[in-house]
Amino acid sequence: MNTTRHPFDIAIDLTGDAGRYGGRTTAAYANMIGPYGGITAAVLLKAVWNHPQRVGEPVSLTVNFLSAIAEGDFDIEARPVRTNRSTQYWYIELLQKGEVMSSATAIFAIRRETWEATEILFPTVPAADQVEVFTRPGLPAWTGSYEFRFLQGDTKPSSTSGLSSDDSVSLQWVRDQPPRPLDFMSLASICDVFFPRIFVKRKRFVPIGTVSLTIYFHADSTALSAQGERPVLGQARALRFHAGYFDQTAEIWSESGGLLATTTQLVYFKE
Amino acid sequence: MNTTRHPFDIAIDLTGDAGRYGGRTTAAYANMIGPYGGITAAVLLKAVWNHPQRVGEPVSLTVNFLSAIAEGDFDIEARPVRTNRSTQYWYIELLQKGEVMSSATAIFAIRRETWEATEILFPTVPAADQVEVFTRPGLPAWTGSYEFRFLQGDTKPSSTSGLSSDDSVSLQWVRDQPPRPLDFMSLASICDVFFPRIFVKRKRFVPIGTVSLTIYFHADSTALSAQGERPVLGQARALRFHAGYFDQTAEIWSESGGLLATTTQLVYFKE
Repeated sequence: MNTTRHPFDIAIDLTGDAGRYGGRTTAAYANMIGPYGGITAAVLLKAVWNHPQRVGEPVSLTVNFLSAIAEGDFDIEARPVRTNRSTQYWYIELLQKGEVMSSATAIFAIRRETWEATEILFPTVPAADQVEVFTRPGLPAWTGSYEFRFLQGDTKPSSTSGLSSDDSVSLQWVRDQPPRPLDFMSLASICDVFFPRIFVKRKRFVPIGTVSLTIYFHADSTALSAQGERPVLGQARALRFHAGYFDQTAEIWSESGGLLATTTQLVYFKE
Repeated sequence: MNTTRHPFDIAIDLTGDAGRYGGRTTAAYANMIGPYGGITAAVLLKAVWNHPQRVGEPVSLTVNFLSAIAEGDFDIEARPVRTNRSTQYWYIELLQKGEVMSSATAIFAIRRETWEATEILFPTVPAADQVEVFTRPGLPAWTGSYEFRFLQGDTKPSSTSGLSSDDSVSLQWVRDQPPRPLDFMSLASICDVFFPRIFVKRKRFVPIGTVSLTIYFHADSTALSAQGERPVLGQARALRFHAGYFDQTAEIWSESGGLLATTTQLVYFKE
């Protein structure tokens, strides 16, 4: 293991090629049980990114979390199901001892310039460097691989953000810790970076697990390069908590106000 | 073909069992090119619903539209990838002549009663029977299989709804035409019922195609039974149109104000 590499790059490192890869969980992205879901999304996307038959850049990714990934080695199989003129559809599985632990579908595309419009407004927020860096002891290891600056919804029972609420909304600046230039894999991982909405809503911790995560990439690699290592802004909320499951919808914005990704997930909870 | 059956039931009818099924496109759900995406989502879900190994009810469905399905017969293969204590993960493909035309992942679950909350508010709207039924000649056949009552965003170049806007928001009552009791399959289909957001935003028609659709089911079968044949309320909007793709996020509400489903899709466009 090359210690000069960024912990994120080590965590998504894959050996092998042409759709059959080997990887390994790392301590830097460990969650309560198994790895942080975002790093799993990132390494599944990386398997397509590395594939010699890949066409274009990701526009859509859905990851299903079937079972908690154990610490250690895993295999990834990535298969192009169909390649059209400008779009390509993938099916990807992460396996341990031959059992599927995560599955994903991804769509890659060659984008063209078109008419464009962003309808949602960039939230009115202070610059990242005006906001205190979040620290709290006792959280899972992966949270140390990100720098959070909360404007709202940091899950603290008694908030110091000055914005208390009974809703499930979080608004936060976030970047890799240590800083790393944004790419599709780190953007995918950041899409899962929000604390579970029920922690924010209920102001306490309950057993949860994301079962499915979908990401739409609105940015191309040029836009990601322009973002560099600077923090992105994330906003997330839940619409309904019901009968053991809740949803989360979120947006990830560039520092300059460009909508980089929209993401939604479905989360199991016990309460 | 049994003419006493509802056209929706005919359209999602499958022969075969244990994960290998045969189906057929129908004229009632034909779109410009190939069938309406919602009916494809419904028949993919039906393949799991019919499977002898199915556990519980759907909580999540992602459908990828790989290529336009041709008029005529198709095959569906549905495979349970993993079954846990209360959750089950599926991979499903729709094929014609051995080629994958649509693929999907679905999560089924046995739900339990838990604490619950709905954070999003039911829109303030007049009752369905107070709103004019939408009619317009020249639209694809599938639109005749639904009864629309628009409150906002009906895509008419000069709106008669009294609510003109420059945004991409649509708000509408909708039900099967002829009426049919709501179930998971028809709810899945209704999740795709919104006219493409770019038609609403630009007030004109451009070539489009949904590439991926994700549905989270917030209702169980009891809630769907309670809804019966009455119209559901749908609200949809886009956040960003950029470089050939836009997103759509939408909610489907019961007539009594219960959130039945949330859904998001990514759509290719040429403009």
